[in-house]
Parts: sequence; C-alpha cells; structure tokens
Amino acid sequence: MPVHMELRRIIINELGDQQIIVLKEVEGERSFPMVIGPYEAASIDRRVRGLTTPRPMTHDLVVSVIDHLGGEIQDVLINDLIDGTYYARLRIHKDGELVEVDCRPSDAIAVAITVGVPIYVNESVLREALEESDEI
Amino acid sequence: MPVHMELRRIIINELGDQQIIVLKEVEGERSFPMVIGPYEAASIDRRVRGLTTPRPMTHDLVVSVIDHLGGEIQDVLINDLIDGTYYARLRIHKDGELVEVDCRPSDAIAVAITVGVPIYVNESVLREALEESDEI
Repeated sequence: MPVHMELRRIIINELGDQQIIVLKEVEGERSFPMVIGPYEAASIDRRVRGLTTPRPMTHDLVVSVIDHLGGEIQDVLINDLIDGTYYARLRIHKDGELVEVDCRPSDAIAVAITVGVPIYVNESVLREALEESDEI
Repeated sequence: MPVHMELRRIIINELGDQQIIVLKEVEGERSFPMVIGPYEAASIDRRVRGLTTPRPMTHDLVVSVIDHLGGEIQDVLINDLIDGTYYARLRIHKDGELVEVDCRPSDAIAVAITVGVPIYVNESVLREALEESDEI
C-alpha cells in the first residue's frame, strides 16, 4: 500500500555534497530522512519557496516535455529501497494508460512539487526506511 | 538557416559558478563560447566522457520521459539570442508531428549528447554570437 507523504524539511549543508530532505506521513507521524545531491536540494528548495527563474531549469523541462507530449503527471511513488538506495517513479497518464518512468526520488519530488501532485511511498519502503533511520 | 554545430570544448572552472562551453561549426571554422551553470557543465562533461551513473540523472530522466511517451528526439536547435541569453528547443517527433519544447541550451546540449542527435544554431544567432564574442 502506498502511503501519502509530504516534504517536511530540507536541510541544506552548504559545506557538503550531501543534503537531506525529510518526508513525513500526511495522515500519521512517521517520517524518515533521505540524502540527496546539492543541485536537487537547491531545485526542491526553490520550488517550495515558490521562486521562479527566468528560463526553465532542468526539472521544469521534465514537466514541460511531459505536457508537450500529451502526458499528465498523476503522482510520484518511491517504490523501492535496495542497498540503501531509494528508487522512484513518475506516474503519468497518457491516452488512458498509466506510464511509469523510473527516476531518483529527488527528481520525483522536485517534479511533484512543481506540478502539485502527491508523493507516495510504498508501505514496505517506509517500514524499511524507519528501521534504517533508527540504526543511525 | 540552421548551422550544424559540435561541442568543441568544455572549460570547467572549479572556483566559479559559471562554466564555459564552446560550440564550433561542423563544416566550417566559426565557433563561439557560451556560459552555462556548473551542474549542466558537469552533466555535459560526464556524457562526453561516456561516464555512466548507477541511477538516472535529471537529463537521463528528460530522455527517458520522451521515450516512454512515444517521442523521438530529432535534434536540438539554439534558436534565439535575446539580451545575452541564448534560447533553445528540443525538437521531438511524435505521431508524425514535430513538437518543439523551449529549454536552455545547456539542457538541450546535454540531451543531444545523451541521445546522439545533432546540435543546430540558427545562422542569425551564430552571427550575433560571433559579434558578441569579438567584443569581449
């Protein structure tokens, strides 16, 4: 079962290459951190703040391409966690079909916040993420 | 008339936020520099070197989304230069139509190198770029 999540925090560490975002359950209290890259963190942060750029950034291009090719983003799903790496999917409606495109969670979240669609995490991934963050 | 160009150089300046790429005419000697961001420069550089990453980076996601939605990238075109800013387009074939998606040249070039399609620059843009680089 996918669990509806929201972006709770973005922790920008200007001295390091690894940034942290925290996802929290919308209808519950469970939350977990995820390490992402600095470019992706900056892109998510800018979108959360509603800052726009004069020209489309790369995540805007992803959204624009989907739009121009007749797709509509339904939601994004963090669907797996393998050897400490999270896997995600953009889930796109097109011509009555659901098209799923593999991506990194950071790209998925940047896209989700840009278009305002929900972020889901598979229950099994959420449980495993909670176990891993307990171990830290 | 669009002029067929190739990526001639990437000049990475690790101390600055502005990186430079040089495009050169394939059937001629004209070339001009363009300032791009560090993330985009690193992405282009990695692609030129044929380095792969375990998970899709954002430019790979652009390519993957086009593929999953039934599009085929024909080429990219740097079509305008306004107030010192270059404008570009991804030109995508889909269902017998040509779909053009506005983007930054750095994204266009990263995508072109990923899929191996030509990079074009409008003749008028090339001339203006040459005038501007003469002025530096």
